[in-house]
Amino acid sequence: MRHLLLAACVAVTAMSVGGVQANDDLNKMSQNPNDWVMPTGDYANHRYSQLKQINAGNVGKLQVAWTFSTGVLRGHEGAPLVIGDTMYVHGPFPNPVYAIDLAHDNKILWKYEPKQDPNVIPVMCCDTVNRGLAYADGKIFLHQSDTTLVALDAKTGKVVWSAKDGDPKKGETGTSAPMVIKDKVLVGISGGEFGVQCRMTAYDLNSGKLAWRAYSEGPDDQILVDPVNTTELGKPVGKDSSLKTWEGDQWKIGGGCTWGWISYDPALNLFYYGSGNPSTWNPSQRPGDNKWSMTIWARNPDTGMAKWVYQMTPHDEWDYDGVNEMILADQSINGQNRKTLVHFDRNGLGYTLDRTNGELLVAQKYDPKVNWTSGVDMDKNSPTYGRPKVVEQYSTEKADVNHKGICPAALGSKDEQPAAYSPETGLFYVPTNHVCMDYEPFRVSYTAGQPYVGATLSMYPPPGESNMGNFIAWDAKQGKIVWSDKEQFSVWSGALATAGGIVFYGTLEGYLKAVDAKTGKELYRFKTPSGIIGNVMTYEHGGKQYVAVLSGVGGWAGIGLAAGLTDPTAGLGAVGGYAALRNYTDLGGQLTVFTLP
Amino acid sequence: MRHLLLAACVAVTAMSVGGVQANDDLNKMSQNPNDWVMPTGDYANHRYSQLKQINAGNVGKLQVAWTFSTGVLRGHEGAPLVIGDTMYVHGPFPNPVYAIDLAHDNKILWKYEPKQDPNVIPVMCCDTVNRGLAYADGKIFLHQSDTTLVALDAKTGKVVWSAKDGDPKKGETGTSAPMVIKDKVLVGISGGEFGVQCRMTAYDLNSGKLAWRAYSEGPDDQILVDPVNTTELGKPVGKDSSLKTWEGDQWKIGGGCTWGWISYDPALNLFYYGSGNPSTWNPSQRPGDNKWSMTIWARNPDTGMAKWVYQMTPHDEWDYDGVNEMILADQSINGQNRKTLVHFDRNGLGYTLDRTNGELLVAQKYDPKVNWTSGVDMDKNSPTYGRPKVVEQYSTEKADVNHKGICPAALGSKDEQPAAYSPETGLFYVPTNHVCMDYEPFRVSYTAGQPYVGATLSMYPPPGESNMGNFIAWDAKQGKIVWSDKEQFSVWSGALATAGGIVFYGTLEGYLKAVDAKTGKELYRFKTPSGIIGNVMTYEHGGKQYVAVLSGVGGWAGIGLAAGLTDPTAGLGAVGGYAALRNYTDLGGQLTVFTLP
Repeated sequence: MRHLLLAACVAVTAMSVGGVQANDDLNKMSQNPNDWVMPTGDYANHRYSQLKQINAGNVGKLQVAWTFSTGVLRGHEGAPLVIGDTMYVHGPFPNPVYAIDLAHDNKILWKYEPKQDPNVIPVMCCDTVNRGLAYADGKIFLHQSDTTLVALDAKTGKVVWSAKDGDPKKGETGTSAPMVIKDKVLVGISGGEFGVQCRMTAYDLNSGKLAWRAYSEGPDDQILVDPVNTTELGKPVGKDSSLKTWEGDQWKIGGGCTWGWISYDPALNLFYYGSGNPSTWNPSQRPGDNKWSMTIWARNPDTGMAKWVYQMTPHDEWDYDGVNEMILADQSINGQNRKTLVHFDRNGLGYTLDRTNGELLVAQKYDPKVNWTSGVDMDKNSPTYGRPKVVEQYSTEKADVNHKGICPAALGSKDEQPAAYSPETGLFYVPTNHVCMDYEPFRVSYTAGQPYVGATLSMYPPPGESNMGNFIAWDAKQGKIVWSDKEQFSVWSGALATAGGIVFYGTLEGYLKAVDAKTGKELYRFKTPSGIIGNVMTYEHGGKQYVAVLSGVGGWAGIGLAAGLTDPTAGLGAVGGYAALRNYTDLGGQLTVFTLP
Repeated sequence: MRHLLLAACVAVTAMSVGGVQANDDLNKMSQNPNDWVMPTGDYANHRYSQLKQINAGNVGKLQVAWTFSTGVLRGHEGAPLVIGDTMYVHGPFPNPVYAIDLAHDNKILWKYEPKQDPNVIPVMCCDTVNRGLAYADGKIFLHQSDTTLVALDAKTGKVVWSAKDGDPKKGETGTSAPMVIKDKVLVGISGGEFGVQCRMTAYDLNSGKLAWRAYSEGPDDQILVDPVNTTELGKPVGKDSSLKTWEGDQWKIGGGCTWGWISYDPALNLFYYGSGNPSTWNPSQRPGDNKWSMTIWARNPDTGMAKWVYQMTPHDEWDYDGVNEMILADQSINGQNRKTLVHFDRNGLGYTLDRTNGELLVAQKYDPKVNWTSGVDMDKNSPTYGRPKVVEQYSTEKADVNHKGICPAALGSKDEQPAAYSPETGLFYVPTNHVCMDYEPFRVSYTAGQPYVGATLSMYPPPGESNMGNFIAWDAKQGKIVWSDKEQFSVWSGALATAGGIVFYGTLEGYLKAVDAKTGKELYRFKTPSGIIGNVMTYEHGGKQYVAVLSGVGGWAGIGLAAGLTDPTAGLGAVGGYAALRNYTDLGGQLTVFTLP
């Protein structure tokens, strides 16, 4: 009997290797503060660490422990992973991956660098960035620029499997970090400026076989939306919910890309992500709501089916790409405990929703300069319930007109740079852009693999101000800024909050900063080799807490430096806006690791 | 009368601006330990600093103050300059120059980056390195890869003048740091592997006009050698001293390049440098002594005329390029005070000469593994006085034979990585290569701009040993190693000695190390982002002493990583020898600045 039981147990274990097992392992591993096992820190996207050896009292004494060059220049988004004695570091195109032996003088255990056609570079709209690696089941997952998703043996760096997720010749590129949920590797796609019909795709963890694919727009069977069971704001979305919001076949080149971060609630078995801008950027070429671009998605990871959706910016007129991360936190709102989802959208609104059903709880501006909308209609009985009220003056519907003074700029009050959440303070720490724009749409025709933008932009700080960024603390229960630290440039680095009562972030000039989580008071700064657009992470090794961040100026804000552009309207308007950046930093690609003496 | 005198003084001052004045200023400035005004620290090439805030007692507490990325990858040789509140940082091709404001958060005051034809890259034998900038008279001098010598306004970075020193289409390239002496800017040239007839050239400090040019081989009027007044080992060199040591016109493609460091004795008004290997590397193609390749030169900076010469390796058979620096120190030898010149040659011999007249005082192996010679004939009455005795077994005279087990390898017991001298300890601190080789010469024909090497090499550590480098302290009075620290790889970084009783150097893995000047005991190490082939320098700003070094693996030893080569015989044999380097570091380009907390 005992033997039989044991045999059964072995069988169950064997079956679940790489399956539910991977998920359980990952979830458990992500709760070990010594490691940093996911690109987002944990499934909830908190980017919060229980480590507190480094704290508000001693962070001023932080010093650099060691450094590492990735051997690549241009924008370094994302953060390394740490699992036990090994750190995994990634870089932008050509996407080198290093395994570093933390136990032996940080020697390089292995390096993987894919061979990729450099012709992918010109189809990467906003620098050759890569947002990081995923780990599960003894494998490291890399999403290459050319959209290849590759599984590497974490011990040797040898390729276990690879899958081609898209076609760079159509403008489809890979920039996002994969996320492993249960026995699936999820991966989004970039190409909203090239008329890609974007989607989220799941591959089998062990074989790399495509499991399901869910587009952002198209017929119900392509978008994996159920007319009855998928809801928006509590109501079934109905048949052809996407198709009927597009004119003709425009949805086939409709954008709605999926290159942001992914979060997951194991209890609800739902994962969350945002879809991006509809294409083109010229709104008059695509009448309708352009569903489900600009949408928060809650899907079942096993099937890809959508449980609920919420479109934040119907019929986008400003490129307020909805891809930013969804942070899952349980909060008491109006005296009621809620499983919330908090999201800081490019459109300048900070949303709090009930993540079980997509109920809209809070929608408030997290930058007071946001002017394109007077706010979201929160009246449940209104026919426009849940929609932002557009301020006529800042509509860009009219083509060939330069629409001036719109705030935020296209890169949003926040872009991909992820916020952090501290369960201790109950606050969200948000790296923001404080930038406005002029936006002139024009007619553009589609050619596969060619830019399909249809707007000329210029960017600048809000009138009368010189700072282009703020690092803020946000109360998502009320939708209020608690404190705000000015920064000269957009804060394009991801935040890290810790149990030490501190929050870390990086600046485009290259400073790593630590501030007091309660007050925002600066406690430490260090000038790293290049501008920081990476995300701060922390780990413990050998009894010591370390904080690490990638430097390497670039990304959309730094595209002028990264790609050597000087025309102010180049880089989709960012080059002129961030021209002063060259007085502070230049290209790089380095990891800086900090610790206490 | 007073008026007249004053007027006369003003006139004299005006006349001397940019002339003797520049020299006096420079000499004086180089004695201010707060600055680092020359690429060599001072005219004597001591690379010694009077600063001692950082010392043997506290260097263990050193920490990183700030960092800066040069925006370029590949080998970063040389070191920044510091003059007052401004630091000038250079990089390899395409040779960016940055002026950094030390008084204002290390902001970039200006950046200069020349437009250069990238076709110069394949004619740079040993990576796209640049060994640094010179300063004088309010100008920064940059020697570009394409041989252009450019004078920049130190305040604005604007080009004041530029002069084309050579032609990359013939394989002539610029890698060396210029040196300003009086009203001349001196610049050497690279291209020994391309059959260049190499030379030292002087340009007028103010106008950039060519003042004089002195070739390493050729007719007397080209080499600026006087048959009577120029001596070798005390004897006039005689007429056609170079021509008669070459067969036919081989001297016209004879190498003898001049890309090393330059030193200067203002009291003697002589400057010193070494000339490199004769070309080709196949010795059987160039019978004769191939004068004045492999030679220590003492010249008058006003005219270029040679006062004395000493050929260390007549008829080179191993590429023991004589370009290494000449360190000028006054030492008591056998009870007699001598104005000495100390030189650690690629051929593995440490030379001490009287720099007034070129008298040979000491010539001893500074790596006990050196086997190609049994030593230098020191018998003044011998017909072979001053010549190294070649061990027949290690002669490579026979072409198409793989001559095995020669020590040192072609990159020498030391290459360009400069040694330091501490007047306090009286010791020379020498970063060395501990590498042997197999050398197979073959017949090669000359085509302008094509490699003209004529030998296949492979490199490896001395049999039975695993360390490829040592950092040593040398007594140049006796020609003896005082202490020796093993390093896994060649120490390709320049040393810095200080009045704090410490010596700094960098390693190819990327460590900055500080050791006790008396014992060699390691006191501090820090892992910088990339392998170090730059030279450590120090300065004081705002009352604090700083130590700075460029990281960026490359150079000859690191060419495999730098140029992405994997064939072990590529990179003139270095790729195989240093293959393990990729387990420790990767490409970079960063300045790391250290200070005490």
